[in-house]
Amino acid sequence: MKNKKIGILGATGYTGIELLRLLRNHSEFEIDFITSERYAGQRLDQVFPALTGKLAGALSFISMVDASQRSVAGVFSCLPHQTAAEELKLFLDKEDVVIVDLSADFRLNSAALYEQYYCPHPRPELLEKSIYGLCDLFAEEVKSSKLIGSPGCYPTSILLPLIPLLQKGLIEAHGIISDSKSGTSGAGKKISEGTHFMEVHDSFTAYGIGDTHRHCSEINEQLSLASGEEVSITFTPHLLPIARGILSTIYVKPKTGVSYAQIQETLRETYAEATFVSISEKIPKTSWVRGTNQCMIYSQPTHNESQVVIVSVIDNLVKGASGQALQNMNIALGVASELGLEV
Amino acid sequence: MKNKKIGILGATGYTGIELLRLLRNHSEFEIDFITSERYAGQRLDQVFPALTGKLAGALSFISMVDASQRSVAGVFSCLPHQTAAEELKLFLDKEDVVIVDLSADFRLNSAALYEQYYCPHPRPELLEKSIYGLCDLFAEEVKSSKLIGSPGCYPTSILLPLIPLLQKGLIEAHGIISDSKSGTSGAGKKISEGTHFMEVHDSFTAYGIGDTHRHCSEINEQLSLASGEEVSITFTPHLLPIARGILSTIYVKPKTGVSYAQIQETLRETYAEATFVSISEKIPKTSWVRGTNQCMIYSQPTHNESQVVIVSVIDNLVKGASGQALQNMNIALGVASELGLEV
Amino acid sequence: MKNKKIGILGATGYTGIELLRLLRNHSEFEIDFITSERYAGQRLDQVFPALTGKLAGALSFISMVDASQRSVAGVFSCLPHQTAAEELKLFLDKEDVVIVDLSADFRLNSAALYEQYYCPHPRPELLEKSIYGLCDLFAEEVKSSKLIGSPGCYPTSILLPLIPLLQKGLIEAHGIISDSKSGTSGAGKKISEGTHFMEVHDSFTAYGIGDTHRHCSEINEQLSLASGEEVSITFTPHLLPIARGILSTIYVKPKTGVSYAQIQETLRETYAEATFVSISEKIPKTSWVRGTNQCMIYSQPTHNESQVVIVSVIDNLVKGASGQALQNMNIALGVASELGLEV
Amino acid sequence: MKNKKIGILGATGYTGIELLRLLRNHSEFEIDFITSERYAGQRLDQVFPALTGKLAGALSFISMVDASQRSVAGVFSCLPHQTAAEELKLFLDKEDVVIVDLSADFRLNSAALYEQYYCPHPRPELLEKSIYGLCDLFAEEVKSSKLIGSPGCYPTSILLPLIPLLQKGLIEAHGIISDSKSGTSGAGKKISEGTHFMEVHDSFTAYGIGDTHRHCSEINEQLSLASGEEVSITFTPHLLPIARGILSTIYVKPKTGVSYAQIQETLRETYAEATFVSISEKIPKTSWVRGTNQCMIYSQPTHNESQVVIVSVIDNLVKGASGQALQNMNIALGVASELGLEV
Repeated sequence: MKNKKIGILGATGYTGIELLRLLRNHSEFEIDFITSERYAGQRLDQVFPALTGKLAGALSFISMVDASQRSVAGVFSCLPHQTAAEELKLFLDKEDVVIVDLSADFRLNSAALYEQYYCPHPRPELLEKSIYGLCDLFAEEVKSSKLIGSPGCYPTSILLPLIPLLQKGLIEAHGIISDSKSGTSGAGKKISEGTHFMEVHDSFTAYGIGDTHRHCSEINEQLSLASGEEVSITFTPHLLPIARGILSTIYVKPKTGVSYAQIQETLRETYAEATFVSISEKIPKTSWVRGTNQCMIYSQPTHNESQVVIVSVIDNLVKGASGQALQNMNIALGVASELGLEV
Repeated sequence: MKNKKIGILGATGYTGIELLRLLRNHSEFEIDFITSERYAGQRLDQVFPALTGKLAGALSFISMVDASQRSVAGVFSCLPHQTAAEELKLFLDKEDVVIVDLSADFRLNSAALYEQYYCPHPRPELLEKSIYGLCDLFAEEVKSSKLIGSPGCYPTSILLPLIPLLQKGLIEAHGIISDSKSGTSGAGKKISEGTHFMEVHDSFTAYGIGDTHRHCSEINEQLSLASGEEVSITFTPHLLPIARGILSTIYVKPKTGVSYAQIQETLRETYAEATFVSISEKIPKTSWVRGTNQCMIYSQPTHNESQVVIVSVIDNLVKGASGQALQNMNIALGVASELGLEV
Repeated sequence: MKNKKIGILGATGYTGIELLRLLRNHSEFEIDFITSERYAGQRLDQVFPALTGKLAGALSFISMVDASQRSVAGVFSCLPHQTAAEELKLFLDKEDVVIVDLSADFRLNSAALYEQYYCPHPRPELLEKSIYGLCDLFAEEVKSSKLIGSPGCYPTSILLPLIPLLQKGLIEAHGIISDSKSGTSGAGKKISEGTHFMEVHDSFTAYGIGDTHRHCSEINEQLSLASGEEVSITFTPHLLPIARGILSTIYVKPKTGVSYAQIQETLRETYAEATFVSISEKIPKTSWVRGTNQCMIYSQPTHNESQVVIVSVIDNLVKGASGQALQNMNIALGVASELGLEV
Repeated sequence: MKNKKIGILGATGYTGIELLRLLRNHSEFEIDFITSERYAGQRLDQVFPALTGKLAGALSFISMVDASQRSVAGVFSCLPHQTAAEELKLFLDKEDVVIVDLSADFRLNSAALYEQYYCPHPRPELLEKSIYGLCDLFAEEVKSSKLIGSPGCYPTSILLPLIPLLQKGLIEAHGIISDSKSGTSGAGKKISEGTHFMEVHDSFTAYGIGDTHRHCSEINEQLSLASGEEVSITFTPHLLPIARGILSTIYVKPKTGVSYAQIQETLRETYAEATFVSISEKIPKTSWVRGTNQCMIYSQPTHNESQVVIVSVIDNLVKGASGQALQNMNIALGVASELGLEV
C-alpha cells in the first residue's frame, strides 16, 4: 500500500519527532529507518514513551552509517547545521534519492552569507545544486530537485506575504520591519536557563535585537531576489510562553501610488489556489493554525495609510519546519502535496 | 500612625483590588472607604475571599453617595471612563481633596480628541484643570494638582522612553512604530469570549490594528506636546497569554546626525535619579518588573543603524495603573513617592 | 470513496468541533450535515475561522429539523443533556441509523440515578435500549447497538483501570478514592467567571468536593456492575491551567492475599490487544496523550503496600469525548475502530 | 532605624532570592551580607538584573568565610541539605546568633530517618538542639531556640491541618492520603529536562509515587509525634504547570463517633488567633495565597461521610520556604511575627 520508503536522519529533536507524528497518517510513505547515534539499537517507544502507537513499537533507531546502506526514495535530515552538510555526503551520491534538509545548510545561495551568520560552509559547491524549498511559491523548482533546503520558521512567516508584494513592486524594499514572536519549541529541545519553565512561563521578552538572528540571512537573500534590490530588514524576534506558533507583525510601506487594495488583491491572487496559505478576513491567532501546515495572512493599512500592517501566523514545528519539509518531499516525489498534512 | 485617609471609588475591578494590595503596606495612608454599588454593605473578604488579611476583614463596601459624606485627603477613582467624569462631581467641589482618576476621563487636553476615541466628554471644562500624571516626568505638575488623570498602561510603556527623545529633538516625530504586547489583566475583569482561558492560553494574537486603540489618543497628544509637531504613531497591541506585564518594542529613526550614543545617554540622564525608571543593560523580561512599579528601558540600534529599537517593560496593573496612581497620590499629598510601592 | 454518511447535531461546542477535526482524516465517513439552530445557513469557516481547510469551506450549518430529513448511516449528538433525549426523537425511529450521544442522557441504566444527578429523564424508556459505550471493554455490545451513550471524560479515566480489577475481585469495592485533575476544555465553551483566563492561569483548585460531581453517577453505576457490590467512590475533581488532558490518581486497596503483581498482570492482560489503552512503565504525563485517543495507565504500590496508586491519563476532548464517540461509531458501523483516530 | 543585622547564606537560589524580596519591606532587619562562592565580589543587580531596586545596587555577594567574620543577629541558610549542616559550623558556635536553616538538615529528630531519606547526617548531635519551625503551631519552642529547621513546602501544607486533628485524636492515624500538587519553582532553579518549558507547560503529571519523596520523613515524624502512633501516610506529589503554589488534597477518616463538625471546629479554634493560617468557607485556589505567607484550609465530608476531604493551599516559596523562615526569625529575634510578610 505505502509505495515509497523514507528515512529520517537525527530523529530525536523536535523536528524529527514532529515528522514521525505527521508520517503516521501518510498514505504513501513508509518509514524505513530513523537514525540516532546516541540511541542506536533502542526502540522508539523506549526512548519516547509518549509515542505509543503501533509505529513506535515497530521502529528502532539505527546509526547513520547503517542508514546509508538502505535503499529509500527520500531522506529527511534533521541534523544540526554544519553536521548536515558534512554527513549528508553518505546520501548525496545516490541516484534518485530526494534529500530534504531541515537545517540552514542548503537554504542560501551565497556561501559568504552562510559564513557570516553560521560558519564556513562545509560543502559550498552544493549550494548551487540545492534549491530553497518555500514550496507554496517555488513548487516548480522543488519538483525537479534532489536537494532541498527547507526554510526556517521565522523566514516562512515573513517571506510568504512579502515575496509576492516585492516581486510586483508594490512595496518599498527598504525600511521593512518584522516584529516576530515565537513559541518556545523554536528554541529546540536542548535544555538551557533560557528555556527553564520558570524563565519562560508567565513572561515575555525580546532577543536578538539588532538583526543578529541567523534567519536574517535567508530572509534578506530571498527578499533581495524578489525585489531586485539589496534588502536588509529590521527583524526583532521575541519568545512567547507558548509551545508552538509564530506570529509576525510586519510593517511595510506601499510605493507611491500603490493602494492598499492592490496589496490585498495581490495576496489573494497569489494564494487563490494554495492549499496551505490563506488570506484571512480576521486577525488570526497562533492557535488557529496549531498542528496544521497552514499559513494565515491578514493585512490592514495604518490609520494614516502610510503603512500596511501584515500579520501572519504559522505553527513553527509544522509549516515552519517538519510540515513544510514533508510538503517538499511530497512534491519532489510526485505524490499529492497535502498527504500527511492538516490543512 | 497612618496620617492620611484615603477612599477608593469602584474598588471591585482589577485596578481597585491592586490598589488595596498596594495600600496594605503603606505607612501613611489609611483606607477610609471603598465603594461598590453592587456590594454595598458586604465585607471585602466575603466578596473577595482571596483577600484574607486583617485589612480585608475590617473593610466593607459602601455606596458612592455615602462615600461623598466622608472626609478624606485623597480619592482614587477606579470607575470606568464617562462614569468617572460624571460621578466625581460629588468629590470635585470639596476643598483639599486630591483626586487620582484611573480612567481616561482626565488624561487628555482635548475634548474633541476624547470624543473621537471615547464619547462626548461629560464635563469638558474639567480637562483644563486636570493634569496628565506621568509622574516620573511630570512630578512638578502633580505636586500642585488636585485632579490627576493617571496614564493608561500602553501609553506609560511608550511615553517614558519617547518623550525625552522627542523633547530633545533626537528622533523623527514621524514614522514611529510601537509593537506592544500586554498580559490579559489589561482586558479587565469582565468576562468575554476573548478572555476565556481556552482562547488566550497557549495562543497569541494582535488586535486593534490600524491605530484604532483608544490609547492612541493620549500617546499622540503627549508625543505631539513633546515634539512640537503633530505625531501619529503606528500602534499595534497584542494579547499575551500571561497575567500581567506589557512589553513594547518601539522602532524610531534618529534624526540625521544623531548617534545612538546620544539617544542612550539622554535616556540615562533623564532617569538617573528616578526611583521607578531604569535603563537596563540587558533586554528585560516582563517578569523582571512583575508586581513592581518599575519601568525598565533597553535600546539598541538596528544592524544598518537606520533605526533604534527600544524595548520597555512594565507591570500593566502597577506602573500601568494602580502603582502609578499611588505614586501620583503620594506626590500630590506630599509623602515619599515610593510608599507602598516596590522598586 | 467515503462510503458512509454521517451527521453531527449541535456541532458548535468543543466536542462538535473536535469531531470535525477528527473526521477530516477519516477514510470512510463523509460529513453529510452539521446542525446549529443559531448558525443555520452560515458556512462553517465563517463561524469558526480557525477551520480553514477544504472541509470548512464546503460545510454549512443546517437546522435540526432539516437534518432530520437527511439520510445518513450515523448521527453524533453533541447536544446538552436533557435536550439530547428530547430532540433525538427525530432520529430514533429511523431504521438503521446509529446514534452516538455525547451527553449524559444514555449513559445510565437507572432513571432514578439520572434524576438524582441531573433532572427527570425526558425519555426514561430509552435507557433500556441504549448501551454504555466504554468500547475498549464493551465492544461487543457496541457492535449490535443503535443507541450508544458515549462515556464522560472523568469516568473514562477511572473506569478503564478499575473495571477489570473489580470484575476479577482483586480490590476492595469500598474506600476507592479518585483524585482527578482536568484541563479547562472540560468546562465547555460557555464563558463564565470560573473559566476567565485570569482565574485559571497560573492557578489550581479543587471543585465539587463531597462527591457531588454528576459523573459520580456513571462511575458508581459501572463500578457497582463490575464488582457486584454497591460502590460509592470518593471523587475529587480539580481544574488544571491546561487546555486538554485528564490525570486521575486513584487509590485502591488490594483484597487480602492479592499481590500487586496480580493487579498489574490483570491490567496488562485486559489491554494486551487494545489499540487505545496501554499500560505504561513510566508515570505518564497528560501531554503524552494530547490529541490522541489513547488512555495510558500506570500503577505502583504504596510504600507500606497497603494500597495501590493508579495513574491514568487521557485527552478529555478525544478519548474522554469525541474520540471515544468516533471509536463507538466506527465499531457500530462496522469499519476499523481506529479510523480517524490517533493512537 | 533597622535594628537587627541579618545574613543570608547561599542567596542565589529561589529561596534566597525570595528572602531578599521579602526583606526589602522589613522594618527591623537590615541585610548585612549575602553569600555565594560563585558570585563573590559581584553586585546583586549584576547577577540578577530583575532585582533593580536600591537594595540590589547596594548589596554584593561575599564568600562564606568572609561572612563568618561578620557580626549579625540572625543567619538564614539557603544552602542545600548536607552542605548546610557541614558549613553552618562557622556560625553555630557564635553566641546569640539565631540560625534559621531552610534545608532538611535540622527538621528531623531522628538521624536514622535522615539517613534513610537523605544521607548520613554530617552532624547528628545537632538534631537534639534544633527545633522544627512549624511556627504557627510551635511558636513557643521557636522563641527560645537558636537553631531552627524551617519546614519543607509539602509538609507545611499537610501538617498545619493534620497535627491539631491528630493531637485531639479526632481522625485515624492510619490510612491518611495526601494527593499534593506543586508549582514548578518547588523543583528549584537548576535546569533539567523535567523543568524545560516544553515538558511542563500545558501538561501535568505525578512523580515520587510510592511514598519515596524525601518530605515523607518529616511528615511522618511530625504526624507520629502528634498522634502518639507510628504514622505512615500515602503521599503522591504532582507537578503543576504554574510558577508557585501548593494545593494538597488530603483524605482522612474521622474516628468512630467523631462528627465532621468537631473536626471543623477544632481547625477553627486552633487557628482562631493565627495571623497566617485561615479556615476558608470556600475551596481556595493557589492564586489566593500567591506571594503571601498564608495557609488557607478548607474541609468537607465525603458524600457517604466516611471520610473528610481537606484542601490546603500555600505559596511554596513563601509559607513553604522563605516566608515561614522569616516568620521563624521574627519570632526568635523577638520582633512582630508578621514583619516583611503579606497576610
